[in-house]
Amino acid sequence: MILAGGRGTRLWPLSRADKPKQFLPMHGEHSLFQRTVERHASIDGIGAPWVICGEGDRFQVEDALAGIGVIGATVVTEPVSRNTGPAIAAAAEALVRHDPEAVLFVLPSDHLVTPDEGYFESLHAAFAAAASGKMVTFGIVPTHPETGYGYIKAGESAGKVRRVESFVEKPPAEEAVKMLADGHYFWNAGFFAFSARALLDELASFAPEITAAAEAALDEATVGEGVIQLGERGFASAPDISIDYALFERTKNAVVAPLTCRWSDVGSWRAYWETLEKDSSGNAVRGKGLPVDSHNSLIVSNRADVVALGVEDLAIIAADDAILVCPLDRAQDVKQVVATLKTRKRNDLLDVSPTVSRPWGGYTSILNGSRFQVKHLFVTPGKRLSLQKHHHRAEHWVVVRGTAEVTIDGEVTTLSENQSIYLPLGAVHRLANPGRILLEVIEVQTGSYLGEDDIVRLQDEWGRT
Amino acid sequence: MILAGGRGTRLWPLSRADKPKQFLPMHGEHSLFQRTVERHASIDGIGAPWVICGEGDRFQVEDALAGIGVIGATVVTEPVSRNTGPAIAAAAEALVRHDPEAVLFVLPSDHLVTPDEGYFESLHAAFAAAASGKMVTFGIVPTHPETGYGYIKAGESAGKVRRVESFVEKPPAEEAVKMLADGHYFWNAGFFAFSARALLDELASFAPEITAAAEAALDEATVGEGVIQLGERGFASAPDISIDYALFERTKNAVVAPLTCRWSDVGSWRAYWETLEKDSSGNAVRGKGLPVDSHNSLIVSNRADVVALGVEDLAIIAADDAILVCPLDRAQDVKQVVATLKTRKRNDLLDVSPTVSRPWGGYTSILNGSRFQVKHLFVTPGKRLSLQKHHHRAEHWVVVRGTAEVTIDGEVTTLSENQSIYLPLGAVHRLANPGRILLEVIEVQTGSYLGEDDIVRLQDEWGRT
Repeated sequence: MILAGGRGTRLWPLSRADKPKQFLPMHGEHSLFQRTVERHASIDGIGAPWVICGEGDRFQVEDALAGIGVIGATVVTEPVSRNTGPAIAAAAEALVRHDPEAVLFVLPSDHLVTPDEGYFESLHAAFAAAASGKMVTFGIVPTHPETGYGYIKAGESAGKVRRVESFVEKPPAEEAVKMLADGHYFWNAGFFAFSARALLDELASFAPEITAAAEAALDEATVGEGVIQLGERGFASAPDISIDYALFERTKNAVVAPLTCRWSDVGSWRAYWETLEKDSSGNAVRGKGLPVDSHNSLIVSNRADVVALGVEDLAIIAADDAILVCPLDRAQDVKQVVATLKTRKRNDLLDVSPTVSRPWGGYTSILNGSRFQVKHLFVTPGKRLSLQKHHHRAEHWVVVRGTAEVTIDGEVTTLSENQSIYLPLGAVHRLANPGRILLEVIEVQTGSYLGEDDIVRLQDEWGRT
Repeated sequence: MILAGGRGTRLWPLSRADKPKQFLPMHGEHSLFQRTVERHASIDGIGAPWVICGEGDRFQVEDALAGIGVIGATVVTEPVSRNTGPAIAAAAEALVRHDPEAVLFVLPSDHLVTPDEGYFESLHAAFAAAASGKMVTFGIVPTHPETGYGYIKAGESAGKVRRVESFVEKPPAEEAVKMLADGHYFWNAGFFAFSARALLDELASFAPEITAAAEAALDEATVGEGVIQLGERGFASAPDISIDYALFERTKNAVVAPLTCRWSDVGSWRAYWETLEKDSSGNAVRGKGLPVDSHNSLIVSNRADVVALGVEDLAIIAADDAILVCPLDRAQDVKQVVATLKTRKRNDLLDVSPTVSRPWGGYTSILNGSRFQVKHLFVTPGKRLSLQKHHHRAEHWVVVRGTAEVTIDGEVTTLSENQSIYLPLGAVHRLANPGRILLEVIEVQTGSYLGEDDIVRLQDEWGRT
């Protein structure tokens, strides 16, 4: 069960509300979410993944799964955000109605894990403990006195896992040094395993308001092929609380399964820099970056070439519409920058990434004028957009790659590369890619109001009418 | 006479080969070039300006002059670059053929000058000295022990000017402190005044190869309305030498006219930062910048929002296609960055700014695909592009603002906002703005070759056929 509801605000400006860090290809071509799914796909006895995410992320979760050829997954959508406690409870409730014996392996979608030899063996030991009724948490064997993570203190062994003695909040530096030397402390990775039934029973005793909310959300849920949309009334009644606080800090059944793998929560630009390969001066470059006489710095840019001359310990992150420059040591404070931008109502820089994924493909905004807008649309082979119309804008489409099938007021036209068509204001239209290669279209919108919400969907394959 | 041939490489990435710093609106709406022209337009007895520039800059010089309503200017174009000595000699030669009594006031187009009360009085004194045969150079009264400028040591007074005793190269710090205390040293501003005839006579004695080249370049020149295109054979035969070395360091007639005005050569991002207004933390922002807990830094960005979190003494300069981040103290080394980019054949980042000026308006490249390109065209009211055709590309035009008059193979169509037209490969076409407001067009080019040189001009108002 993969938790994909995080917002990753500390990785602004790449991470946006509509495309948080777990969906970004931050290491290689696949996103952290996809890598998380792939890492565990071939474990003996594991089922198709369940994914918990916000309602708005459903399509990009489905797209991401399709992109790595995963079938049979179940997506559970949260109508509002209530932290991991209620999310896991609701998903466990759904699962247990399906399979009362189910054992859940819960993990975040936005961590980078490099499995070592013992990784899968440790997982199996943890699953066995979970099947026997233990609440299993996973602890990373620490490699340095990190002050940015919470710790788990382990007690005596119980087979291959150890009893949890206590949870320790992010420690001050001297404390972290002592804990590293002590040898019984592990980083709290936020991975868990438990029997779904046992989890719900324990939760019902510690926090009955959570299990009640989960049951109500399930009773009201809209269930479709591979998707469970939790009911809003029930789910919203749950408290906003993490599974750590709701359960693990209270139960007597908690055990910790140590993991020796390389792990990062990719929780800041500094943490990201640590996960990347560096040049001989300690610089990590992702995309178009040229460090000149610079050291221990991070450059991330997809579009513009970034020249960093004579800088040290600096992060330079360039998105199309926003650029962040800050010392790596200040990376935690990006959260405050995001808060400041929110106060200043700069939602344009927070909510929407310039490139937007849709179930049929997606688009990039390339120019915003006062009464016009230019977009670069991508339509996946075989997919089509909803049948739609706009009240305030007309559109011009120029096909620059592939073949388009365009329907306007019932009339179907096929356009090939270099052909264009006009969609008058109010015309009922649809764009489809009947071909075998990606369709690329330049869309020029004109009108007095160009918001994304001026769209009347008359027919849609994804239930968005 | 305004020298507008500089390349301003230290102000990369804003300054590009096709749009060097003097043509950028770096302070307010007008460019440094325009401000230079405006500053002296109303001096008693001064004539319409002469401008010396590279052949490639002629149209943007004419546009810049038109933009501030200057008429009657003469543009002298250099076929190759030979530094200020030959450029001034050729222009003086042209002027003296026109008016043997002419007194020249020569000044760079890329300096920022804030005239004080005595400024124009000092100029008049200098012009009087120049008319009497002196070679006048201007010296800025120094305000601090600057090591980045050359100095002029002044001797005894001769009326309101002083005899030049010597020229001093950029001094070491302790030397600069002594010179400041001494009181007889001035910053060499690179402004000059002399009688054109006297200049040519002196130059003929010290450097006859320069005056010979200037005469040949004039004899071969193509002379049009307001423009003198110097002949290449003659002009290229001149040595590459500054007027300082060619004349001022040799003549016995040099005097210096002190100026107490605020002056900057805007020679680096640090110098630029010094010319700007700062917030209470010493940050200067031009365009879209948000310093958070940052100090003494410079942010320049037109398009993307730049957040600078916790930085000090840093320059962050964001152009559409390239971003420079460097400590203000390393601003001089941007020249080396440009050299590095040249070595790596990154001419895309050096030669052409994403926004290109043309005599009819200009365009911005907004998207480059492998077989397509999208541009945002601007056509000034009353102007039209050349009558042209392309061998390798078709074009779609969508009018997003204003009115377009489009000619295709002899047929004329008028398009208003929201209308589009297709220009097939090989069609002879022309775009004009017959209206009273700026015309904006989105151009989508498709084809296998999309270089700017695939253009056959059949008719052109600016002699570009």
